[in-house]
Amino acid sequence: MLEGIIQNVRERVPLIHCITNYVTVNDVANILLACGGSPIMADDQQEVEEITSICAGLDINIGTLNSRTISSMLLAGKQANRLGHITVLDPVGAGASQLRTNTAKSLLEEVKFTVIRGNSSEIKTIAAGKGNTQGVDANELDAITEQNLPQAVEFATKLSESTGSTIAITGAIDLVCDTTQAYVIRNGHPVMSKITGTGCMLTGVIAAYCAANSDRVTEATVAAIAAMGLCGELAYQKICETNGGTSSFRTYLIDAMSKMEDDILKGGAKIEVYTR
Amino acid sequence: MLEGIIQNVRERVPLIHCITNYVTVNDVANILLACGGSPIMADDQQEVEEITSICAGLDINIGTLNSRTISSMLLAGKQANRLGHITVLDPVGAGASQLRTNTAKSLLEEVKFTVIRGNSSEIKTIAAGKGNTQGVDANELDAITEQNLPQAVEFATKLSESTGSTIAITGAIDLVCDTTQAYVIRNGHPVMSKITGTGCMLTGVIAAYCAANSDRVTEATVAAIAAMGLCGELAYQKICETNGGTSSFRTYLIDAMSKMEDDILKGGAKIEVYTR
Amino acid sequence: MLEGIIQNVRERVPLIHCITNYVTVNDVANILLACGGSPIMADDQQEVEEITSICAGLDINIGTLNSRTISSMLLAGKQANRLGHITVLDPVGAGASQLRTNTAKSLLEEVKFTVIRGNSSEIKTIAAGKGNTQGVDANELDAITEQNLPQAVEFATKLSESTGSTIAITGAIDLVCDTTQAYVIRNGHPVMSKITGTGCMLTGVIAAYCAANSDRVTEATVAAIAAMGLCGELAYQKICETNGGTSSFRTYLIDAMSKMEDDILKGGAKIEVYTR
Repeated sequence: MLEGIIQNVRERVPLIHCITNYVTVNDVANILLACGGSPIMADDQQEVEEITSICAGLDINIGTLNSRTISSMLLAGKQANRLGHITVLDPVGAGASQLRTNTAKSLLEEVKFTVIRGNSSEIKTIAAGKGNTQGVDANELDAITEQNLPQAVEFATKLSESTGSTIAITGAIDLVCDTTQAYVIRNGHPVMSKITGTGCMLTGVIAAYCAANSDRVTEATVAAIAAMGLCGELAYQKICETNGGTSSFRTYLIDAMSKMEDDILKGGAKIEVYTR
Repeated sequence: MLEGIIQNVRERVPLIHCITNYVTVNDVANILLACGGSPIMADDQQEVEEITSICAGLDINIGTLNSRTISSMLLAGKQANRLGHITVLDPVGAGASQLRTNTAKSLLEEVKFTVIRGNSSEIKTIAAGKGNTQGVDANELDAITEQNLPQAVEFATKLSESTGSTIAITGAIDLVCDTTQAYVIRNGHPVMSKITGTGCMLTGVIAAYCAANSDRVTEATVAAIAAMGLCGELAYQKICETNGGTSSFRTYLIDAMSKMEDDILKGGAKIEVYTR
Repeated sequence: MLEGIIQNVRERVPLIHCITNYVTVNDVANILLACGGSPIMADDQQEVEEITSICAGLDINIGTLNSRTISSMLLAGKQANRLGHITVLDPVGAGASQLRTNTAKSLLEEVKFTVIRGNSSEIKTIAAGKGNTQGVDANELDAITEQNLPQAVEFATKLSESTGSTIAITGAIDLVCDTTQAYVIRNGHPVMSKITGTGCMLTGVIAAYCAANSDRVTEATVAAIAAMGLCGELAYQKICETNGGTSSFRTYLIDAMSKMEDDILKGGAKIEVYTR
């Protein structure tokens, strides 16, 4: 199912326009390069349409929003839509403030996204128009568990129907749904939540994987999530061997992504096709 | 004296709202996670009051200021005061430009800070309303030495009295004073000044330690400074073992913070209660 | 020819004012410290003239431009010119958007730069007033090769004549020209293009090397490029030994710069004086 997805990224080197927060922007750029893509960051309204035009994909991430960048996100998103480019939304902290919730809402009204990726709290905010986000991490009540998986699949499928987007809800258990398919991914490691930016980085990787595999974006999203989770597992193994901490973990995570290939992913991916 | 301070951080996971510069923001987020807290960065006036309301502490850092973020700092600071939250000021480069000096002054007039942390030059600028800052490092004339320690304690105590804040002056020798207590900390390593962000990271850690130990903020500040210095010592040891340079040092510093516990701190802290 | 250049940087610790993009700003600050300089980042028009006045050099990098920072670049550049400071321009992505192309043009009209460093596509954009930039990497057509080296030298020499700047075109082969001299540098490693910021970091290092060696800026530029390339080679060697990936490469690159000395550079530099 995931054959050749990573190979395509490495051969096609998709250029990804990122309008993203300044907290994790360096990590996003580096993991995009590591996974086989190429990043370009530009957030001024005077250039975003031009920049997005020369790219294959657009990654919009609403962390550290301001009014200047919101306009740019809308302009870039519409331009990407006009050109039929891959568009990915990361609604960081939707639900934590009206500004973020409303911006996510505006973006969804005016831009069609290929994929929306967030934690369960952010995705629920998007679905509900109201939120229960604590900070930028999903609060516990909202997390996907083995018990509430059927409800989560139903919820995500409906959201996919209403938005036309592939929905990716990530956390201890990851879920990817479009209107007809659902996948559960069980890769990853808890230390991933002890560094900033794993979500932002993942969204960047999803954009690159989808841009290089635009004929199978749901599968590309699944592959990106499994690859990222597997990198987390490999990085955890390496900090155990070297007695490292969370910053070494970050380094090894990106290191692992720079070496990720289809065969490695195939050997380590824990993907389940969810049967309704 | 420092018993349980770190344990409290790891158990309570204080959410810290950071309005900070874009140079070291990623390091601040990562060390906040490493020390047991949780970061959220938001600097737009449309959301800072809401964001700070869901947090336990506010970290204001005036590096890379602009007029947009200055307003946000004032709004967030006042809101944090209304809610009785921990507020920490890092007056990066106060004295290097009128903008920074005046912003520090405005912040001190309109916001009550739990802790103010800077190098000796920045803190003197705050006290004097005029400065002698070279870049963002304390110039040598201003540095605290064994010889001028009594004068420094007197100076910091007076500043604590006039501001109502715990004053932390960091450098080769670190000093923490409130109106009744003074502590001298002799942890740390000179290589800490060869990476960017050790000061910004420390201020973030102080915010988290204080937010999780709000009944003893001066002690929490001392613990944070000693912990950071000890991490610097451990990181230096590790670059010697691995033949690493300054970037590895940065990685190992955050690594060490991610493993810091009360017992490790107790074993390595070099804290002196200063008796006047 | 390069004798004492690095020693001068380490002894004089030039303070470099950077107005640079938020993607790689942390790397730029850290490599400036690693190479022996000291960074200060400030981009608000209310303070840039003051800040640049206390510095020895100014590094202007047009990645992630916006209208606020463009004004600041012009103000800082003119002030640096008035004071006779070293000024270095990195026209990131010139040619990728009108905003970037026009900003580079305005800067060149209003500010005299000591050095302009970019990839071949960016430098050609500057020369031509039109561009063929794909993203922020030079497209293949434009790259300097052994075959087109004579044409490249002629091109760069003419640009040096018209701008009064030392011209540095970097890529697999690096070229530095002023009106009378031309140098070809063959250090570096392809993995350098797999992390973000090698160009931005190099420009920062050039600013520090020139500021500490203002009587021989072309040689200082050559030294900076060779040093950076050599660090890339050493970092590559280290990831091979440790089975690391691209993020470890970034760490080792800055590590190597923190240990760079004149003797190491002399032993590893691959510099050819180009004879016309």
